Amino acid sequence: MPSHRYRSAYEKVSVPLTDRAWPTARLTRAPLWVPVDLRDGNQALAEPMDTARKSEMFALMLAMGYKEIEVGYPSASQTDYDFVRHLATSDTLPEDVTVVVFTPAKPDLIERTFASIEGLPRAMVHMYTATAPTWREVVLGYDRDGLRELITRNAALVGRLADRHRAGTVRLQFSPEVFNLTEPDYVLEVCDSLTELWDASPDRPVVHNLPATVEIASPNVYADQIEYMHRNLARRDAVILSVHPHNDRGTGVACAELAVLAGAQRVEGCLFGNGERTGNVDLVTLGLNLHAQGVDPMIDFSDIDEIRRVVEHCNRLPVHIRHPYVGDLVYTAFSGTHQDAIKKGMTHHAAAAAAAGVPEREHPWNVPYLPIDPADVGRGYEAVIRVNSQSGKGGVSYLLQTEYGLDLPRALQPEFSAVVQRATDASGTEASAGDLFALFHATYLDPGTDPDGAVVLGPWSTNEIAPGEHECVCVLSAVEYRGRGNGPLSAFIRALAEAGLKVDVLTYAEHAVDSGLDSAAVCYAECRVDGEVSWGVGMDTSVLAASVRAVLSAVNRAAVVASS
Amino acid sequence: MPSHRYRSAYEKVSVPLTDRAWPTARLTRAPLWVPVDLRDGNQALAEPMDTARKSEMFALMLAMGYKEIEVGYPSASQTDYDFVRHLATSDTLPEDVTVVVFTPAKPDLIERTFASIEGLPRAMVHMYTATAPTWREVVLGYDRDGLRELITRNAALVGRLADRHRAGTVRLQFSPEVFNLTEPDYVLEVCDSLTELWDASPDRPVVHNLPATVEIASPNVYADQIEYMHRNLARRDAVILSVHPHNDRGTGVACAELAVLAGAQRVEGCLFGNGERTGNVDLVTLGLNLHAQGVDPMIDFSDIDEIRRVVEHCNRLPVHIRHPYVGDLVYTAFSGTHQDAIKKGMTHHAAAAAAAGVPEREHPWNVPYLPIDPADVGRGYEAVIRVNSQSGKGGVSYLLQTEYGLDLPRALQPEFSAVVQRATDASGTEASAGDLFALFHATYLDPGTDPDGAVVLGPWSTNEIAPGEHECVCVLSAVEYRGRGNGPLSAFIRALAEAGLKVDVLTYAEHAVDSGLDSAAVCYAECRVDGEVSWGVGMDTSVLAASVRAVLSAVNRAAVVASS
Repeated sequence: MPSHRYRSAYEKVSVPLTDRAWPTARLTRAPLWVPVDLRDGNQALAEPMDTARKSEMFALMLAMGYKEIEVGYPSASQTDYDFVRHLATSDTLPEDVTVVVFTPAKPDLIERTFASIEGLPRAMVHMYTATAPTWREVVLGYDRDGLRELITRNAALVGRLADRHRAGTVRLQFSPEVFNLTEPDYVLEVCDSLTELWDASPDRPVVHNLPATVEIASPNVYADQIEYMHRNLARRDAVILSVHPHNDRGTGVACAELAVLAGAQRVEGCLFGNGERTGNVDLVTLGLNLHAQGVDPMIDFSDIDEIRRVVEHCNRLPVHIRHPYVGDLVYTAFSGTHQDAIKKGMTHHAAAAAAAGVPEREHPWNVPYLPIDPADVGRGYEAVIRVNSQSGKGGVSYLLQTEYGLDLPRALQPEFSAVVQRATDASGTEASAGDLFALFHATYLDPGTDPDGAVVLGPWSTNEIAPGEHECVCVLSAVEYRGRGNGPLSAFIRALAEAGLKVDVLTYAEHAVDSGLDSAAVCYAECRVDGEVSWGVGMDTSVLAASVRAVLSAVNRAAVVASS
Repeated sequence: MPSHRYRSAYEKVSVPLTDRAWPTARLTRAPLWVPVDLRDGNQALAEPMDTARKSEMFALMLAMGYKEIEVGYPSASQTDYDFVRHLATSDTLPEDVTVVVFTPAKPDLIERTFASIEGLPRAMVHMYTATAPTWREVVLGYDRDGLRELITRNAALVGRLADRHRAGTVRLQFSPEVFNLTEPDYVLEVCDSLTELWDASPDRPVVHNLPATVEIASPNVYADQIEYMHRNLARRDAVILSVHPHNDRGTGVACAELAVLAGAQRVEGCLFGNGERTGNVDLVTLGLNLHAQGVDPMIDFSDIDEIRRVVEHCNRLPVHIRHPYVGDLVYTAFSGTHQDAIKKGMTHHAAAAAAAGVPEREHPWNVPYLPIDPADVGRGYEAVIRVNSQSGKGGVSYLLQTEYGLDLPRALQPEFSAVVQRATDASGTEASAGDLFALFHATYLDPGTDPDGAVVLGPWSTNEIAPGEHECVCVLSAVEYRGRGNGPLSAFIRALAEAGLKVDVLTYAEHAVDSGLDSAAVCYAECRVDGEVSWGVGMDTSVLAASVRAVLSAVNRAAVVASS
């Protein structure tokens, strides 16, 4: 690869930080989240949102609990302008929500931006200018001093127009775009001059938003850059330090998290990481990462599939199936060892919750391979375990148990799991719970009623002929036999012996499939039949009939083995 | 959100590290990359790869230059067993490539694993056991000592079978699964005991692979965990420290990068981040992240679309359109300011390469908003700039220039860009280069030949009647006029004046659309027509005809404005 064409990030920016506090800092509370989907995300869509879609996404953000929302770039698009006017005139904005509008540092565009917010009781005007050397020199044609002068001049206009806003308070935000490629001392110089110009104070703080417009280095470098600013910004208590990471290197989430450790108080991003190129940092992942560590994200993610539905509809872009917390497969285990661990973990969780006397959904979560309880975000458990050739007994028996109420004896699990694996290895496809039940039925239940089996059971009855003594009369392959024993099943086994079949029951288990009087019973019998060991299963509303069929199934399955 | 159900990562693991070197370390060379798609990735697919797809992906990995490749879990799946046997018997494995096979710590499965590699001249056997407290206690049913004893007993069997392997060398790897949730001292104890048991030495090193099986903390915590191991592992020069990050928190790439800073020498992951739940760390992103910082990844990504095609075919899963370096949209700019900056950056890049006398594809890359040159990974520039209502003059003129050879005068760009924006704002959709050209044609070229225009040009001719003196004879709306001037165009303008149309040409530009004698010329004319200023454009193989049409277009466009 022609990697010599690229300079290292350490050559591009040098952060004058010799010690750092962020690696030992801890995430203990949520920063202020600011979704920028309606502006920065919208700029990245082949088909930008129309007013209807903008309104739908804005309503979603309010419902989720976001308190500061960037709603558009009104000087650049009529749709954005109209949307801001709609917000300003419809009087539907909750009192604790502030909308942000975005503008470049150009007088006519600043004026149009202020025109868009006229009448809004609370708004933030967000002015940006790219400050990195390549942008300054190649794109804008300024040196450091010239650009600072341009920024200050336009910021002064912003300040004057904000002072004149009669409907309420306009707060101010500045972004030195491409902060992460700008000389740290230059950013400080520019930001500090605006803090002073706009006369920021703790009760009227300015937002300085420091974007990683294009990711260029591992996230520890961004953390260093943010900590440097955090430590050196003037009037620090009058500044809200904000970050705006992108995801070109796939480390946007890490950049945001390390930046918060380094002193950032506010994070701009998009739902599920929409945005130009690889997108902005994903606010959903960031929020749920806090949740998974015991920190309340202050945002409602309790119905994540509905959030996803709205976002996919508005953006007309899909969310990937492996996207953290929301993708179709992210709570799913196919691997046998994972399934086994999850099954044991879920059982342990249920027992621990019961022992503590709290509902399972309230009990501390500690299930292997599932970083959070899917129920926290409105997901069910159906998709947690899915079976294919990579799966094992844990997954197979979990699905039969949760979907069909079958609690397979431990000793039967590996045998049936091998049956499943042969089938899925051969088909190359996944097996649904229905497929597993059909396979289980064909393997263990059908042989007990097989009209072509080695032994076909005709009419049969049992009687308690004396206390503790039972007799069974049955037709086996068209011949009547009798047998007696201390229970009806042992009487049936004696009748089989009369027919020349020596059967020992080695393992026997039964349970009701549902609770309730009418529910079916299922019986599992591991038998030695003329020296062959085999499992049989029977199911019936009568426990006795289920057990007779289980034994007969074992007999017929053993006959197949013996004759093969 | 019920975040109180979760403990903080700092409570779950405590790393006894008081100082750390990784935040100041630098990425200067590629670690050893080990793709585990054929095992760990394969366990995560609804439809696991069959032999044909496994072979196709394996061939891709060899072609890309991977030297250590985990190929399967032969004791768990017949397909995997057969695939390893195929490699062992087909004698097609390059001499510098080692395959890795994965096994749990169970004697029968270890034996079957060794059976699968019989005859392989080079192989690595990778034994794993989950070591974290929940896994030990809830899943496996062991305490610390019991589990260590189980690991050691099975590791001894692995060592004996490796010694008996006659075809060549078997190297050994151990993974304490869920390393990141395991007590650091326990991992050290277990790993060190295996280093000794397997008698690892610098020329026969053991691999200790430390997975973040389920991501639980911000990536700096994983870096601390790795640095602790790096500093404290016994016989450090006889150990290759490997990492295996997952992506549950969306920070897998960051975990891998910070782990390498912290001392990791080997990284396991999957192409484009396949794997159970949210996937394993993405080896493509990691490699190209190094490339973008000037470090050769030692892997060939020069045709990334072909790599993606094979991986999507084998996994039957799509790669997301915003996936770093490879997604359909990641080199695309829709936003006007981005497009303008890219256009200037590309022009600057071409000029700088020409000045340095090197091809553009060799010249150092420094174009705004494009972290790497798309050409490095085999991408063209067609998709870099796409136009919709969020776009501006930069993008519009870039597309007309690159796709249609039209170099719009600077003063015309904002005017036409506004035309485009009105159209895209109204349609809500993207405009292709073809759409832009059609719109340009309808706006500026058609009025010059409009049979219903204010002025319709009939037959016309020009003559040089004396040196430097030209005459134009033309039919304007069915009436013949004449004019003279110091050039043919000024003669035409005089003829227009005869017809009562006062035209001043304020700006005039022309260029050939292609190189070559027969190529069309395009002329741009900004005119004041009876006080109205308007642009007209003409195109013809004759420059003169093009200029006449341009002026006529300006006249007819001004007439529309004047009458409206």
